[in-house]
Amino acid sequence: MKVTVMFQPKEEFVNDLRKHFPDVEFTFFKKIGEAEEALPDAEIIVTMGEDLTDRHIERARRLKWIMVTSAGLEKMPFEAIRKKGIMLTNARGIHKVPMAEFTLGLMLQHAKQLGSVLKQEEEGIWSRRLPASELNGASLLVLGAGAIGSEIARLAKAFNMKTAGVNSTGKMVEHFDQMFTLRTYKEFLPHADYLVAVLPSTDDTKYILKSEHFDEMRDTAVFINIGRGDLVEESVLLDAVKTKKIGHIFLDVFEQEPLPADHPFWEEEGISVTPHLSSITKMYMPRAFDIFKRNLKAYSNKSDELLNVIDTERGY
Amino acid sequence: MKVTVMFQPKEEFVNDLRKHFPDVEFTFFKKIGEAEEALPDAEIIVTMGEDLTDRHIERARRLKWIMVTSAGLEKMPFEAIRKKGIMLTNARGIHKVPMAEFTLGLMLQHAKQLGSVLKQEEEGIWSRRLPASELNGASLLVLGAGAIGSEIARLAKAFNMKTAGVNSTGKMVEHFDQMFTLRTYKEFLPHADYLVAVLPSTDDTKYILKSEHFDEMRDTAVFINIGRGDLVEESVLLDAVKTKKIGHIFLDVFEQEPLPADHPFWEEEGISVTPHLSSITKMYMPRAFDIFKRNLKAYSNKSDELLNVIDTERGY
Repeated sequence: MKVTVMFQPKEEFVNDLRKHFPDVEFTFFKKIGEAEEALPDAEIIVTMGEDLTDRHIERARRLKWIMVTSAGLEKMPFEAIRKKGIMLTNARGIHKVPMAEFTLGLMLQHAKQLGSVLKQEEEGIWSRRLPASELNGASLLVLGAGAIGSEIARLAKAFNMKTAGVNSTGKMVEHFDQMFTLRTYKEFLPHADYLVAVLPSTDDTKYILKSEHFDEMRDTAVFINIGRGDLVEESVLLDAVKTKKIGHIFLDVFEQEPLPADHPFWEEEGISVTPHLSSITKMYMPRAFDIFKRNLKAYSNKSDELLNVIDTERGY
Repeated sequence: MKVTVMFQPKEEFVNDLRKHFPDVEFTFFKKIGEAEEALPDAEIIVTMGEDLTDRHIERARRLKWIMVTSAGLEKMPFEAIRKKGIMLTNARGIHKVPMAEFTLGLMLQHAKQLGSVLKQEEEGIWSRRLPASELNGASLLVLGAGAIGSEIARLAKAFNMKTAGVNSTGKMVEHFDQMFTLRTYKEFLPHADYLVAVLPSTDDTKYILKSEHFDEMRDTAVFINIGRGDLVEESVLLDAVKTKKIGHIFLDVFEQEPLPADHPFWEEEGISVTPHLSSITKMYMPRAFDIFKRNLKAYSNKSDELLNVIDTERGY
């Protein structure tokens, strides 16, 4: 069985795979261009999911399974994969812990004014007159109450916050006090101290957060987007902070990444830019390979119990 | 009954006190000097606990109760208070929530490298190559497993951390996986990713964290002091970061506060200075006055059930 890995992992992962699967033939390629020759023989492809095209799928005649070592599938050639009946799995689930920690980190940075504290330190200023607040008792609204959203809510509850979630059905999800749908959540906006968006990019979520939503929010509220950049038009975000509709915006995702050097978000005081970091930790690859190894074992044993099999019709 | 408040609270607190206790005569003074005249008639003094001296106690002939609206009692004239049999209460307990949130905020700031993220943003740099880690699975050692320490451990457990605590007896405290005493905790130091000190300043805690303790710690470990500045000699801290014995130090408390402008801590990369902020939030005074009101009601009813009565022999 031949596995083509379309990136070069650290040696420890390579050794670990070969140790656990001595009968599997792994080949690793630094760039997708170099992998071209190996594609016709590959039964399994492991990819970061950024550069696979229809042509690669076409060329991989023996391909049965694609493992994507991330959760975002926007760039996958779904049509070709579906047509050829190739199984697709991803690393969904590994983002829950780091993204929830990152989100709480930003919320505490805001509540405790740690950005201002850092600036004061740089300038050698000892001043205790900062508008520090608490998460305790504050309200959180999470757009996208999936695995990541629920983990954010779990931590928020530990901080004694009130939690509301938004999903497609309004069905209760663990760690949320109340639920809304994309049609009904607007009524909660006046009560939210923190609005966190962790929605994927789909036709249902593109540009759905509008000026009228920011009009409803508290002028002290904080908006954090760790989902996808096309949830809100950039002009709406700039207007929201410039006209002081809300207190602060943290953006980890953008329509264009990297965010262009001359983009106004960089300079805007009311907007903090983070370079799509929420899921990045030292634990990323170990967790992704853990899922792959578990699935490869199941696949080798002809078991159906693979984790994170994607419905290629729905796209998630 | 006459209550002398030795500071000027916001009007909302003044009105609230007068509304709830119409039969009590409250007088408020901006400075302790101005309060001198009122002292001989005061049955109750409310103070921030910073400027009361033997002489004031002597002068307050009718004084029966001193309410300190903070938790630190280092500057109180204990001897005079004890001699005259005056009851002493403080605001212990109101620091638990803000100090634990502040501590977790610093821990996440470190784990998620949010300080570097902020610097990158200032310079317009988009780089995802930061050594971000997770609290999940990391180990926390708390020196001072009292109410605040236990609250820090509770939040740490929500982040799936391992927690160890240190108190005088080694007796189990909620939210800690294991306990040590000041004599035994050294053995845990090689396992700690975060060492948080929340010890009060007493004869038993002065300069007890020594160079030999930092020798035992991981070179990636983080030390956070939100207790008192005289827990470690400053030269020991400077040496620990300069010789890379540990990863980073956050100091919220110092032997001299404000920290002098020319102090080397300001410039030291491995040390972050925060201006004794951990307990400061908008909720500080509301919570302190809640305790005072509760106690004043009990006192008026000649009940013994006052909160936070201090043993003036022990000093806490």
